[in-house]
Amino acid sequence: MKLYDCRTAPSPRRVRIFAAEKGMDLDLVPVDLGSGEQFRADFRKINPDCVVPVLELDDGTHLSEVVAICYYLEEIRPDPALFGRTAAERAAALMWNAKVEQQGLWAMADAFRNTAKGLKGHALPGPDKYEQIPELAERGKDRVTAFFGKLNDRLGNREFLAGDTYTIADITALVLADFAARLKIGFADSESNLQRWYDNVSARPSAAA
Amino acid sequence: MKLYDCRTAPSPRRVRIFAAEKGMDLDLVPVDLGSGEQFRADFRKINPDCVVPVLELDDGTHLSEVVAICYYLEEIRPDPALFGRTAAERAAALMWNAKVEQQGLWAMADAFRNTAKGLKGHALPGPDKYEQIPELAERGKDRVTAFFGKLNDRLGNREFLAGDTYTIADITALVLADFAARLKIGFADSESNLQRWYDNVSARPSAAA
Repeated sequence: MKLYDCRTAPSPRRVRIFAAEKGMDLDLVPVDLGSGEQFRADFRKINPDCVVPVLELDDGTHLSEVVAICYYLEEIRPDPALFGRTAAERAAALMWNAKVEQQGLWAMADAFRNTAKGLKGHALPGPDKYEQIPELAERGKDRVTAFFGKLNDRLGNREFLAGDTYTIADITALVLADFAARLKIGFADSESNLQRWYDNVSARPSAAA
Repeated sequence: MKLYDCRTAPSPRRVRIFAAEKGMDLDLVPVDLGSGEQFRADFRKINPDCVVPVLELDDGTHLSEVVAICYYLEEIRPDPALFGRTAAERAAALMWNAKVEQQGLWAMADAFRNTAKGLKGHALPGPDKYEQIPELAERGKDRVTAFFGKLNDRLGNREFLAGDTYTIADITALVLADFAARLKIGFADSESNLQRWYDNVSARPSAAA
């Protein structure tokens, strides 16, 4: 299986960490987002949405969207379980992954894409052109900051976000935290639960993926 | 099991349709979003994010986020399968559900929440206050219109969006189409594949849920 990838983008890192936790070697194919390789005709055939990651199965099927790619990897390599082990745990992992995406990752994307000089006219991923909205960038920063507070409250003394084991939700939150730090959006000093969790999940070998 | 619900909101309708397709009777508990019931202390204990739907399991666990609730229902009542029947089909259903959410449903929410008079200061769901951004409403309308074109292309002669069977992705797209129509965002006359699909999925008894 091939993974169309980009080292600097947050979304493909989620899949790389997921695969590393499972000990799966994916054949990484770099896509140069900086030079616009994702908009070229040959990549549009792979993903008309012009985004990475994309998993290419051996039969030529292309899967995009991180949750779908990771779920597929979970099905073909169930151990260790990264979506939880029971119906209730799987629902909790999907729930927390969705919360981190919607309240954290998409807000961070708003903060990044509506200010980055190289993304003028491309404030949203994909081939369609949308102008940057400065108010949306500000709102995005505020939302990520607020969401870190919610994560801190949720974590309390817990080791992991969704349940008793490390899941896709922890991966999504780790990638959020690292990319937010590049935008100078950090944890508050008082968010010690979040910092402890972050230090813990960052120390896993998969975090280097 | 109880479902905290609201008749007029799009997200809980996704769960009601999903449950109806499976022939499951959920005990519906109405939450009056118009009067702000979701912000009251007793509902915050059920979901601190102050949104519906929320599924209450018999052990008192609360599940939010539509994909997580539906996935849980799929696990406890596998037939008929609404996430597909194989690993590849399940990945495709999750992928298309995610695309419809991100490119359709959240764009529609931008269009709605940034213009509705009753949502001034509440441009995002949840307890935190965010002002409306008129440019975001316009962008939302444009994105939904563009996404209908993509759905039309994807559907072609297909009966369903993700694969050979009706899935959660069809449900999400149906709820998008119906709510968008309330905002006067409709299909183009040329989008005949989309219209055919819409007529087909709307005729299922579950669409009344």
